[in-house]
Amino acid sequence: MAVWPDIVRDLTDAGRHLDIPDVTKWLVKVLQYNVPSGGRNRALTVVEAYRSLNPPDQITEENLRLTRILGWCIELLQAFFLTIDDIQDHSEIRRNQPCWYLYNDIGLTAINDALMLEMCIYQLLKKHFKTKECYLDLLEQFLSVSLKTEMGQCLDLLSTNFGKKPNLHLFTMDRYNSIVKYKTGYYTFVLPATVAMSFTGIKDPEMYRQAKTILLEMGHLFQVKDDYLDCYGSIEDIGKSGTDIAEGKCSWLIVVALQRATPEQKKIFEECYGQSDVEKINRVKQLYQELGVSNTYAIYEEETYNLLHTHIQQISRGLPHDFFLKLLNRTCRKVGRKD
Amino acid sequence: MAVWPDIVRDLTDAGRHLDIPDVTKWLVKVLQYNVPSGGRNRALTVVEAYRSLNPPDQITEENLRLTRILGWCIELLQAFFLTIDDIQDHSEIRRNQPCWYLYNDIGLTAINDALMLEMCIYQLLKKHFKTKECYLDLLEQFLSVSLKTEMGQCLDLLSTNFGKKPNLHLFTMDRYNSIVKYKTGYYTFVLPATVAMSFTGIKDPEMYRQAKTILLEMGHLFQVKDDYLDCYGSIEDIGKSGTDIAEGKCSWLIVVALQRATPEQKKIFEECYGQSDVEKINRVKQLYQELGVSNTYAIYEEETYNLLHTHIQQISRGLPHDFFLKLLNRTCRKVGRKD
Repeated sequence: MAVWPDIVRDLTDAGRHLDIPDVTKWLVKVLQYNVPSGGRNRALTVVEAYRSLNPPDQITEENLRLTRILGWCIELLQAFFLTIDDIQDHSEIRRNQPCWYLYNDIGLTAINDALMLEMCIYQLLKKHFKTKECYLDLLEQFLSVSLKTEMGQCLDLLSTNFGKKPNLHLFTMDRYNSIVKYKTGYYTFVLPATVAMSFTGIKDPEMYRQAKTILLEMGHLFQVKDDYLDCYGSIEDIGKSGTDIAEGKCSWLIVVALQRATPEQKKIFEECYGQSDVEKINRVKQLYQELGVSNTYAIYEEETYNLLHTHIQQISRGLPHDFFLKLLNRTCRKVGRKD
Repeated sequence: MAVWPDIVRDLTDAGRHLDIPDVTKWLVKVLQYNVPSGGRNRALTVVEAYRSLNPPDQITEENLRLTRILGWCIELLQAFFLTIDDIQDHSEIRRNQPCWYLYNDIGLTAINDALMLEMCIYQLLKKHFKTKECYLDLLEQFLSVSLKTEMGQCLDLLSTNFGKKPNLHLFTMDRYNSIVKYKTGYYTFVLPATVAMSFTGIKDPEMYRQAKTILLEMGHLFQVKDDYLDCYGSIEDIGKSGTDIAEGKCSWLIVVALQRATPEQKKIFEECYGQSDVEKINRVKQLYQELGVSNTYAIYEEETYNLLHTHIQQISRGLPHDFFLKLLNRTCRKVGRKD
């Protein structure tokens, strides 16, 4: 948080050279409302990764400052995605405040604000990393992860028929795994670690490969928990009200439920899943109960956590185990605020 | 057009390595519907610029192919902006076909499709220019022009109070000029020429500065004509139905009209401008007539065209006059299809 005011200044200074002060003022509002309000898990991951990857006596104040800026770049990416997702999902609350598109009745013009948040990333990278060896690699990482995330979002939208009616026959565990990997895993877990690796100067592709494998597994566990909380968490816990059932999302809970539902129960899901009617939502929740989905979740969480623990111990290429363990415990263990 | 099938293949090959074939199939649809359907003015500008900047005997088939790919990158950027703009402006027709978000009732999920179009640019640049000296410069140019365009869009949206009610007191010629410069000038005129310059290997900043000055002037004339056609062009001419009056846009016509309106006439504009009611739209058009806006346009067009002609003759730094003259005649002279 220490560098946030500098970041806002960087981004608006750039605008001050331009002849459009109204836009600069507006951009400050967009930044303040949407970026620092989150849990900042991803920014923290960047800083922790950098600290683990470098011996303490080689960590300078200047490099820490740059690492924090990279962290904010990922928070900007996150704010960009969330602002757009909320519009597409008709969400109302995000991080305990109204979604940006509902704020002051901004409506669809919030899309353009989201696009400016996205481009702020590249402004910051240019300003602070242009002379660094890792600059081009950082640009490419942000761009390629953005596309992957959007492809994941596309796969998610295709399975709900663009939000009109879920195609329950598409809700297989394979498809769920692909959605999670692309939509969440890359930008929430892989990117924060690999930008820190790139800034540290790591070049060995095998190290990136090993990191990616573990981080995508962690992203999966994180998303399954997120899906669980969407249904069973309280608004205070997750900073928003759950919409997965009403929006007909391909969530871990419905996939597991469909795996063990009888033809009769499937019929009920067909009738009730993906509709905002409260009774139908409750009918779905009741079926989850009958099918023991919540219990399956508890077992899955425990087992995956242990498996990840083992995989982390097996990392061979000089990557710091403590970083992965810390990340696992912070993001996947405690039922905390959803972001 | 010759390289378009290769481009679609490039972009979907990248997806074939991924484990999400449904997304690849969908992306092909998004690309085919939204990208090649336009006038391809910007792509043509890139190719013409490259041809003018290089002696004929130094132009290889391979470099022409790469130039055409750059042209398609700008068409992708354009498709990205138009898809989003149409959603924000509630447009119905674009390039003589329904807007993408209305196609098959896709709705707001079209936003994500637009974002994928945007990221395709960087996929193509990476695939074809990664080993070229100009690669980083090309990336930065596309990113920086995207932000400028979004800032222009923001300025435009601020003056219409996010599409709710136009703030007519903000509709000054200064503001209009800024909107046009940022929202249209950079990506439609500056970018196609400067990517060709960069690919040619031009480094002299003074050459870029001179080109930019002329190209922004041309962008201004182009947009004024565009505003004129929005009101006075036929659907067949411009490939869509005009919405500026109904949407309360800060258009050249209303700015000129307000400059010479009496307090009574201003009151009528206040009452009628920015509403979809047909009678109110006609009242606005009638006032334009009374104020001689159409005639002012004809004079402005003639004078600016001549002025630009003179400015082009004055270019001193070895930039090819014929390229600018050709561009001027193609984009600003004939009343043609709007894109």
